[in-house]
Amino acid sequence: GKMDTAKLQVWRQTITDDLDRVMTFWTKNSHDQEHGGFFTCLSRDGAVYDDLKYVWLQGRQVWMYCRLYRKVPRYHQPNLVQTALLAGEFLLRHARVSADSMKCAFVLARDGKAVKVQRTIFSECFYTMAMDELWRVTGEEKYKKEAIAMMDQIVHWVRVDPTGLGRPPMPGADPASSMAVPMMLLNLVDQLEEGDQAIAEKYSTLGDWCAEQILQHVQRDGQAVLETISEDGKELPGCSGRLQNPGHAIETGWFLLRHAMKRQDQALKTKAIEKFMLLPFQTGWDMDHGGLFSFLDVEGHCPTQLEWSMKMWWPHSEAMIAFLMAYIETREPRLLQLFQKVYEYVFSRFSDPEHGEWFGYLNREGEVALTIKGGPFKGCFHVPRSLYMCQEMLDQLLAEG
Amino acid sequence: GKMDTAKLQVWRQTITDDLDRVMTFWTKNSHDQEHGGFFTCLSRDGAVYDDLKYVWLQGRQVWMYCRLYRKVPRYHQPNLVQTALLAGEFLLRHARVSADSMKCAFVLARDGKAVKVQRTIFSECFYTMAMDELWRVTGEEKYKKEAIAMMDQIVHWVRVDPTGLGRPPMPGADPASSMAVPMMLLNLVDQLEEGDQAIAEKYSTLGDWCAEQILQHVQRDGQAVLETISEDGKELPGCSGRLQNPGHAIETGWFLLRHAMKRQDQALKTKAIEKFMLLPFQTGWDMDHGGLFSFLDVEGHCPTQLEWSMKMWWPHSEAMIAFLMAYIETREPRLLQLFQKVYEYVFSRFSDPEHGEWFGYLNREGEVALTIKGGPFKGCFHVPRSLYMCQEMLDQLLAEG
Repeated sequence: GKMDTAKLQVWRQTITDDLDRVMTFWTKNSHDQEHGGFFTCLSRDGAVYDDLKYVWLQGRQVWMYCRLYRKVPRYHQPNLVQTALLAGEFLLRHARVSADSMKCAFVLARDGKAVKVQRTIFSECFYTMAMDELWRVTGEEKYKKEAIAMMDQIVHWVRVDPTGLGRPPMPGADPASSMAVPMMLLNLVDQLEEGDQAIAEKYSTLGDWCAEQILQHVQRDGQAVLETISEDGKELPGCSGRLQNPGHAIETGWFLLRHAMKRQDQALKTKAIEKFMLLPFQTGWDMDHGGLFSFLDVEGHCPTQLEWSMKMWWPHSEAMIAFLMAYIETREPRLLQLFQKVYEYVFSRFSDPEHGEWFGYLNREGEVALTIKGGPFKGCFHVPRSLYMCQEMLDQLLAEG
Repeated sequence: GKMDTAKLQVWRQTITDDLDRVMTFWTKNSHDQEHGGFFTCLSRDGAVYDDLKYVWLQGRQVWMYCRLYRKVPRYHQPNLVQTALLAGEFLLRHARVSADSMKCAFVLARDGKAVKVQRTIFSECFYTMAMDELWRVTGEEKYKKEAIAMMDQIVHWVRVDPTGLGRPPMPGADPASSMAVPMMLLNLVDQLEEGDQAIAEKYSTLGDWCAEQILQHVQRDGQAVLETISEDGKELPGCSGRLQNPGHAIETGWFLLRHAMKRQDQALKTKAIEKFMLLPFQTGWDMDHGGLFSFLDVEGHCPTQLEWSMKMWWPHSEAMIAFLMAYIETREPRLLQLFQKVYEYVFSRFSDPEHGEWFGYLNREGEVALTIKGGPFKGCFHVPRSLYMCQEMLDQLLAEG
């Protein structure tokens, strides 16, 4: 009806305007013209307060610039690709800790020297996303080769032999399965297979394995998504076994929904929405102050994470994507209402019209607790990804009249 | 005067009562009768919510039980020593990651199997404190030997060769000096040399080296204590170079003051009080809501630590010790006033008369943010150490009449 269209148009305009302010923030403040790559430690107004280069955030920003260039007509700007290329070359030169290893650093000095290594796969995952997206905008094969080579290394670490990651096996550590791993790999499969039948076939089994692994995190008779479970799909003892991360479950939800849509798997679609969106929202939304909690204990104990009650930017940007995507797939009004609920929280709390880009960290009451716009874990990624995807989905709804 | 004596008596009584409630909390709830050692993941009312055994906290609780047994007449209870011995034997059996290495785990499973290792010296430091204090209450030489052997290993890692810690050297990591290291070593020297002239002589140079290293953290023309500096005593670039941890500076302050008192070094005494107590208090005390901030940036940027504005238990327990000790040494009324300020914040916010032991984590406004009484970093240590030391110091003042 007209009423609904008017509402969608307002949302669409607000999101478009915000995306432009967000991207201006990053293009104006984050480019390192001297060494290539991005400054991501930025104050509220964009001032650089540290010049360390976190590899996750370098890879993500390369990906974001190329993705916007490819998908959003008004961002089909050559300067975005040029900047992404400089950062991509910076990663090619510096991300790997040594020439004879695929292991990437976690953080680099401004000039590219390695500062720290994490014994996980995530630097490598965002490196892969950057390389694949660079190939898509430039057509240069070397980026695609690099993406596939790194992907195959990651899959080897995850499914065959993790010793290359450098984690010593510990006799008292239960072999555990973190949802982050299959979730990230599923996102990578989605990235790599776009428009490429051969790659889609190559990673088809992997995609199904990821979905299956993710579903094992639905525990307690379907009443909770647990972040970490045993390797054979059981609940683990202690805090880490009881940990819930509502934003992470919801982000996984839309990765899973996309997978189900491609597979035309109706049962999986329903599970993605019921178990990975509605359930974590119900558990994770703060009924007193609004916003999604960062961590919860499934038994109701107080989590040990000091930031458990903080409201962070990325669970909210992911929830916007998830609920809008789920609404488009199902046309269930309650899903659009949940989108609206998150949208309203976001635009009254996180968005910063004065300087652009969202605040990252609110306290439980929804007040800004850290004024930084970028830091060791926040760069140019979740916010513009959410805004461009929501814009695209709202356009789709508006086009239906 | 009578007025002051009355005030001191009230403080003394409040602190004594609280110490008893705190110790009842730990003796009632934390003993693992089956494996030895302590549960430290305890809810507000003492319920065990996880059975992991963090080695820092195991060592600290052994130390605390023995120290109270030795120093506080009403805690001269054999059951404290028996429990500490069981935990000490648990550490002897399980703390080291392998038989051929002195490296200790960071956290163990309930039965003692290693779960995680940190590439720092702190598990080993608290292990040393536990062993030395066990020797003092039992007279058994094996504990003293173990303490000295571990201490010498720690000193080797710090001053000669850190490779045994397992940290790979990184080309982009500025060689840095963390104040935690000389501060911890100075505390260990104080521990080991008590009543032992030979040991005091053995570690005399080390003690002076620690004091010298600590003093290098006074930067910016004496206007700030910075947590991390370059190896040659200069300010480092970026966030980590600008980081201030007021509670840590104040804790270091009383370690330094004790060292100065032993050395009868008046200039060092003044520096300990001016630079490591008054200055960090002035910078770190929240003028709006009270309490000490956890982290601050010396330039006034927002710290990247999500918990920067939280009020944590240990900076406050350490500040009580520091200001009371400094008052006794100098008799400057402003130092007693600062003790009172911290004392009043503590007993209106942290202390929990209902269940015993302090809350650990308040939000910026001083409300309880995490209800846990113990967790991965909070055990039976800072609170009872502060209460027993303050009780002892108040007794000293009261004895003067």
